[in-house]
Amino acid sequence: MTHFKTLAAAAALIALPSLALAQDAAPTFDEIGPYIMTTLLFLVAGFLVFFMAAGFAMLEAGLVRSKNVAMQLTKNIALFSFAAIMYWLIGFNLMYPGDGWTISGWVGPFFSQTILDPVGVSAADAALDYASVGSDFFFQLVFVAATASIVSGALAERIKLWPFLIFVVVLTGVFYPISGSWQWGGGWLSEAGFSDFAGSTVVHSVGGWAALAGAIVLGPRIGKYGKDGRVNPFPGSNLALATLGTFILWLGWFGFNGGSQLAAGTVGDISDVSRIFANTNMAAAAGASAALIMTQLTYKKVDLTMVLNGALAGLVSITAEPLAPTLFGALWIGAVGGIIVVLAVPMLDKFKIDDVVGAIPVHLLAGIWGTIAVIFYGDASFITQLTGIAAYGIFTFVASLILWYILKATMGIRVSEEAEINGLDTTELGMEAYPEFSKG
Amino acid sequence: MTHFKTLAAAAALIALPSLALAQDAAPTFDEIGPYIMTTLLFLVAGFLVFFMAAGFAMLEAGLVRSKNVAMQLTKNIALFSFAAIMYWLIGFNLMYPGDGWTISGWVGPFFSQTILDPVGVSAADAALDYASVGSDFFFQLVFVAATASIVSGALAERIKLWPFLIFVVVLTGVFYPISGSWQWGGGWLSEAGFSDFAGSTVVHSVGGWAALAGAIVLGPRIGKYGKDGRVNPFPGSNLALATLGTFILWLGWFGFNGGSQLAAGTVGDISDVSRIFANTNMAAAAGASAALIMTQLTYKKVDLTMVLNGALAGLVSITAEPLAPTLFGALWIGAVGGIIVVLAVPMLDKFKIDDVVGAIPVHLLAGIWGTIAVIFYGDASFITQLTGIAAYGIFTFVASLILWYILKATMGIRVSEEAEINGLDTTELGMEAYPEFSKG
Amino acid sequence: MTHFKTLAAAAALIALPSLALAQDAAPTFDEIGPYIMTTLLFLVAGFLVFFMAAGFAMLEAGLVRSKNVAMQLTKNIALFSFAAIMYWLIGFNLMYPGDGWTISGWVGPFFSQTILDPVGVSAADAALDYASVGSDFFFQLVFVAATASIVSGALAERIKLWPFLIFVVVLTGVFYPISGSWQWGGGWLSEAGFSDFAGSTVVHSVGGWAALAGAIVLGPRIGKYGKDGRVNPFPGSNLALATLGTFILWLGWFGFNGGSQLAAGTVGDISDVSRIFANTNMAAAAGASAALIMTQLTYKKVDLTMVLNGALAGLVSITAEPLAPTLFGALWIGAVGGIIVVLAVPMLDKFKIDDVVGAIPVHLLAGIWGTIAVIFYGDASFITQLTGIAAYGIFTFVASLILWYILKATMGIRVSEEAEINGLDTTELGMEAYPEFSKG
Repeated sequence: MTHFKTLAAAAALIALPSLALAQDAAPTFDEIGPYIMTTLLFLVAGFLVFFMAAGFAMLEAGLVRSKNVAMQLTKNIALFSFAAIMYWLIGFNLMYPGDGWTISGWVGPFFSQTILDPVGVSAADAALDYASVGSDFFFQLVFVAATASIVSGALAERIKLWPFLIFVVVLTGVFYPISGSWQWGGGWLSEAGFSDFAGSTVVHSVGGWAALAGAIVLGPRIGKYGKDGRVNPFPGSNLALATLGTFILWLGWFGFNGGSQLAAGTVGDISDVSRIFANTNMAAAAGASAALIMTQLTYKKVDLTMVLNGALAGLVSITAEPLAPTLFGALWIGAVGGIIVVLAVPMLDKFKIDDVVGAIPVHLLAGIWGTIAVIFYGDASFITQLTGIAAYGIFTFVASLILWYILKATMGIRVSEEAEINGLDTTELGMEAYPEFSKG
Repeated sequence: MTHFKTLAAAAALIALPSLALAQDAAPTFDEIGPYIMTTLLFLVAGFLVFFMAAGFAMLEAGLVRSKNVAMQLTKNIALFSFAAIMYWLIGFNLMYPGDGWTISGWVGPFFSQTILDPVGVSAADAALDYASVGSDFFFQLVFVAATASIVSGALAERIKLWPFLIFVVVLTGVFYPISGSWQWGGGWLSEAGFSDFAGSTVVHSVGGWAALAGAIVLGPRIGKYGKDGRVNPFPGSNLALATLGTFILWLGWFGFNGGSQLAAGTVGDISDVSRIFANTNMAAAAGASAALIMTQLTYKKVDLTMVLNGALAGLVSITAEPLAPTLFGALWIGAVGGIIVVLAVPMLDKFKIDDVVGAIPVHLLAGIWGTIAVIFYGDASFITQLTGIAAYGIFTFVASLILWYILKATMGIRVSEEAEINGLDTTELGMEAYPEFSKG
Repeated sequence: MTHFKTLAAAAALIALPSLALAQDAAPTFDEIGPYIMTTLLFLVAGFLVFFMAAGFAMLEAGLVRSKNVAMQLTKNIALFSFAAIMYWLIGFNLMYPGDGWTISGWVGPFFSQTILDPVGVSAADAALDYASVGSDFFFQLVFVAATASIVSGALAERIKLWPFLIFVVVLTGVFYPISGSWQWGGGWLSEAGFSDFAGSTVVHSVGGWAALAGAIVLGPRIGKYGKDGRVNPFPGSNLALATLGTFILWLGWFGFNGGSQLAAGTVGDISDVSRIFANTNMAAAAGASAALIMTQLTYKKVDLTMVLNGALAGLVSITAEPLAPTLFGALWIGAVGGIIVVLAVPMLDKFKIDDVVGAIPVHLLAGIWGTIAVIFYGDASFITQLTGIAAYGIFTFVASLILWYILKATMGIRVSEEAEINGLDTTELGMEAYPEFSKG
């Protein structure tokens, strides 16, 4: 007898009595199937969204100059790690404060750490109308990391590591959970009828607002904006990695939007997840195609980084409502997202807001667009959507601005001019991403 | 109460009445389980096959010279995006013309866009004997993109962007769906008994034939074939990315072949998917091992790009019948695929057919081999298999040849000699993939 | 009628009679649901663990110098392929010798090749209390490849290809299955109460011991340890790939640990898989964070490669018991793993054991730590855990040492001095990973 089989048998022994509690007959699919399927949805969607951390890391590593690549990679793995710890320590319970079943030993919104279901939880003790706590927590946790990744891209190539990580700690432990609870925690925006299925506003534009505040306080990179009004392009050092990152993000978005159905155990729910997959893919394809055509028409040449950001903007745009639209709806919503990016990137440069990877157009502007587009395919009112957009914008932007100023005043947020010119890798980390390849 | 839980509860409210319609008692697994599991299979297999787009992009970016990498990346993300739109606009309904349930408002084979199941479809209205339309559409869509990716690799480093994309539009919207319907749409080859489980012929050799036609019309790269009959190697610029791409494709192939079981809700079906996973993995391992040993014996040195293509050839070879063979069957079928690649690459060079990444040996020749190998493990007759191979070959090759000639005559398909020598990145796109790394 | 639908219908025809055999009424979830869900768990977890092969390849390609990258990539794809074949040919049946249902035509532990369930296996003939043979075999197979990958990283930049592959053949076909059967095959350690949920010892430290034996026999790279006692750093050539590899491994670990629950069809099991996901993620985040903070405090600068190895050490540490700990438990267990790596890397250098990627600290030392940490969250005794650690260590280290010496004495295991200095890529393979990028 194998240990493996023993283990499986032991698991069956643990589980069976609880089923017996539920009823004498063998359970039907309707009794425990939905719990199992929804939990599975969270796990699969969760690992896909987790992998977006790699997508952001590759996208950003590819779009910065090689002298800052090691630092950008460090920021990305560190922000995910810190976000994971903070969301457990504070965030999850702060975001879902009234949700008794996720909290055991609740002592207030702060520092009431998440408690998972006990090992071998019985059917009688599980939340059979939803999913396991662990799967829900994991799924929510990987979302918050996406918000922080948006900030790291925009502020690349000049921000110091530690102030950035302190910002991430507060963003993922406090800011994001507070504003997130307004909508997903059953708060006032949810009650007002605001609609944001998977987070065009709650996740993406929140990241965008935090990035915008940081970009303003931090200022542009040295040499980006010439005295004569010229905008100097700083081309990304590795477009292969940037493209890989985009594809990984696209992949992860099936989990991001699909998992946000929050249920997979009925015919209606799994079919809805399927609609969401098809619509999400269509919006990304449309965003990329629109940016491709737009750059060809505008600049007479296709711009690969715009196409990549167009795909991402299409994805952000459909995130507020990936379920209700038809495929044609997903197409035009995503295409408008792609067009927004092509128009907004030069616009930001006019305001001398230096967003290294285009995170603000992609996540903030396309996020706003996607949140508005909900009104075409649902019951949400234009005013309510604007209210939600404004509430998230004002709160996140102001709170972020204050925090960035505090960090600036206390420890400083920007590397020295010399460090910026020589690159953050050698000066701040003492190591290079590509030490052997000579730079042109 | 959280919004998330509200949403889940709302979904339950939508779904429950429909279940009530089906019967008064709670549904058993047999009633809705298979629909849910098969839909889930399509979604999971679908995102794996989607990710093959990243695999092809990395493989091709790694195997072209650095001066053409940005263009190759652009082609790969653009072809996926265009294919996704065309397959929705025309392809899916053209490929499955008699399949009433996928079409609402059918007005003929062209431009009868796919309509997904309504939001919160009830069990009474769903195709409980199969899967949700959205999941099926998504799964089929990611297949067609693979076909187009094969073409982009073979024709790299000299084809213009826009004629290539126009070819992709016609291939994915018209050619592939028409020939695909012969077999998977229940057409004449299906009725004749032709057997191609997941598409060694229907997908891979179709891509290979389209690539071959293009390679002939386009001609080889400048300098590839010397006047003295010498074949000049143009080594790939980044074998790490090429290896990554191969592993991603190998991963995606579990979805490609596993999802093609088209059912996962019975003991027999999920066990068959398991067999397919094990066989697919074995064929890839055998293809890689065979190419490794072959290159060691032939050239006294192992050739990494041959090993990568050997793995892919093993995968293509088992795709026509990944279910029926034993593990030993998968081993020798895959190994022969790997050997074919090692033999065919120099053979193509003799004919001065310049296939940049080896797509024709891998997808066309191993695809033909895999389709023939079906006869050893099933009821398919040799003649029927040959008929199918020939039908797909003649149709795709001739149609592609005509289209390539039309594109050549009207807009031209090849970049200027100067652009080719300087690289497509700076001349056609105005950007480089690795702008900072000096070239040796 | 589509062929796809025909196929699905045919599958239903195959499967239905078997269900009818089981009972007259439609089956409930309790009857076939667990088999289907556990099989699905193995398939999904299996493809995640498969993808770890790409993670190891990228991590190692990123951490070696560019002159050895193509060779490192070759070793990684070759070792996976050879491991897959050997584990089928010998390993699986050797590891699970008493498990009658996996073996058909059993003729002894050697060369009794794995036989999968027949196509369309009926419910009556399937192991309804577990999972399909194919899914179990696939899941076990991808584990063994991880063990071999650990060895390839440690011995990089100086070992010959073929002796390395012969070692892999014996390790994956014989050593790993024999010692694996002690625990997972229901052998003496399993009976003694040794506890190793997903393989901190059975997989990771086994790989680490084999690597340690190899590193001793092989000796350090030329120039690594100066005559004056100085340790010369040989920085990795591509930290972006190393970071990508780490994220891929982190992703794969959800399958590695989650799939090791070996059951997913009850409320208790799927909730346990969820706990495992949450704990696995927490341990990785804690390991990365601990290494980040440790390197900042120790060296005044953050070291990215230490952060990457810290995340991996956190993952290895939680692997012996990812289910029982609380999230806080996962945090501190993982953090200690990260600290071990930062302390152990310089320690190994003191002994002049040259481990190119840090595989021995990550997989061996953190693996031992994780196996000991089990005692804090379960019934395992300290003595039993030490016994298991010692048994695996002595057997694997001694057997590996003997095999390395035999290989050294017969065919030689180390490339020539000239080859090592010029790089294995040009000398052993005749190709470069980055032929166009000039080296600094």
